Amino acid sequence: DITLRAANVFDHNLLSGCHVVITAGPTREAIDPVRYITNQSSGKMGYAVAEAAAEAGARVTLISGPVNLPTPTRVHRIDVVRADEMYDASMAVVGEGCDVFIATAAVADYRPTITSDHKIKKSTEEIHLTLVKNPDIVAAVAAHARRPFTVGFAAETHDVITYAQRKLENKHLDMIATNDVSGENVGFNSDNNALTVIWPGGHKVLPLAAKRQIAKQLIELIAIRYKR
Amino acid sequence: DITLRAANVFDHNLLSGCHVVITAGPTREAIDPVRYITNQSSGKMGYAVAEAAAEAGARVTLISGPVNLPTPTRVHRIDVVRADEMYDASMAVVGEGCDVFIATAAVADYRPTITSDHKIKKSTEEIHLTLVKNPDIVAAVAAHARRPFTVGFAAETHDVITYAQRKLENKHLDMIATNDVSGENVGFNSDNNALTVIWPGGHKVLPLAAKRQIAKQLIELIAIRYKR
Repeated sequence: DITLRAANVFDHNLLSGCHVVITAGPTREAIDPVRYITNQSSGKMGYAVAEAAAEAGARVTLISGPVNLPTPTRVHRIDVVRADEMYDASMAVVGEGCDVFIATAAVADYRPTITSDHKIKKSTEEIHLTLVKNPDIVAAVAAHARRPFTVGFAAETHDVITYAQRKLENKHLDMIATNDVSGENVGFNSDNNALTVIWPGGHKVLPLAAKRQIAKQLIELIAIRYKR
Repeated sequence: DITLRAANVFDHNLLSGCHVVITAGPTREAIDPVRYITNQSSGKMGYAVAEAAAEAGARVTLISGPVNLPTPTRVHRIDVVRADEMYDASMAVVGEGCDVFIATAAVADYRPTITSDHKIKKSTEEIHLTLVKNPDIVAAVAAHARRPFTVGFAAETHDVITYAQRKLENKHLDMIATNDVSGENVGFNSDNNALTVIWPGGHKVLPLAAKRQIAKQLIELIAIRYKR
C-alpha cells in the first residue's frame, strides 16, 4: 500500500520537470443560442489539482470549461466551452508531448445532433431532441501514440467502485479517482471531497477533506505511481 | 411619450407602499442527477431591477434561480432551481397579493418528460429526449384573479420587436422589456444592457448603459405606467 506524506511535508519538487495537463469544469452543449445542456461541475476539484501540481513543481496546462474561478498561480489556462473543443485542445497538448494527463472535467457525454441558429420558439408542445455521444477525451488520451500517464475521474451516483474499476480497465487508464456525487457533502459544488483512487492492483481511500488537501494527496499518489 | 428623470434625481419614494415581486436568473431542468438543461442567464439584470425597486422604496421579493450573486440590501430572496418551483413560488406570492410582478428570469420553456434517478450510462449511441412545455409563469400571473401590474422580459435573437409585441398582447401583459441577445455587448452575462420597453400604445428605447442604470430607468417607467 502507498503511504502518503503528511501535508506539511508536501514535496515541492515531486513533479519538477514534468508537464501535467488537467481538464476541469463542465462543458456546455448548445441546443440553440440561449439553451444548453450542462452539469453541476464547479471546476473546484480540477483547479485544486492544477494548483497542487504547480506546487509540486510541474509545468501545468489547465484546459477549462466555463467556470467562475481564478486561474491558479503559474498555471497556463486554455478556455473552452464545448466537449469537442476540450477534445481538440487535449489532443493538441498530448500530441506535443506531456507527462501526466488528469481528466477532472465533467465533460458532457452527449450533445444535441442539431444546434438551432435561432432560439427555438414555444410554438410546439413537445421538442424531440436526439443526443449523440461526444468523443471520450480520457480514452483518446490513453490510446494516443504519445500516451502520458493518464488519470480519469468518475462521478457516479451508485455502484461507484464497480463502475470506476470498469472504466479503469475499458479505457486503459493508469489511475482513476472516484467519488459518489449522490452525497450532500462531497463532489460538484462543495469545497470538500472524498475520493477512492484506484489503479491496476491497488487502491487508496482519501477521506473527506478540503479539495485543496485531497488534491495534494492525489498528486502524491500520481507522482508515486508515475515514477515507478 | 414618457420622459425619464435623470438618475441623480431618482425618487426614493417612487414605489413606497408597493410590494414588487421579481423573478431572476435561469432555471435548471434535470435530465438525470448530474445533467440538466439551462441557459446563459447570469441573473444580473433581475438583481439590478430588485435593487432599483428597493431603492425606489418598494418591499421587494426576489424569486431567484441558481446564480452567483449577493442578495441586494432590503430584498427578500426565495431560492428555486426548477421552472415548476419558480412557478409555485410566484403563484404563492401573487395569491397573497402584490402590486407589481417583473419577470426577468430566463425560465426554461421546456423540461425533459422523464428525469432519471440515476446518471444515464454511456451505453447507448443516441439518447432520445422528449421535452415538454413548462408552465408560462408571467402569463399565469397576468391571468391571476389577484393580477398585479405585470411586466415581462423577452430575450430574442431576431425580429426582436415583433416577437415582443406579440408576447405583450398574447399574454395580456402591462409592459414588456426586450433585448437582442445576439449582440456581444448586451444581455445575459454582460454588465451592460440596452432595452426596448413596450406597453399598449407606446414604447421607449433605453440605450446601452450599466444594468444598474437601465434597471432604475425601467423602474421609473413601471412606476409611471402603474400609477396611471
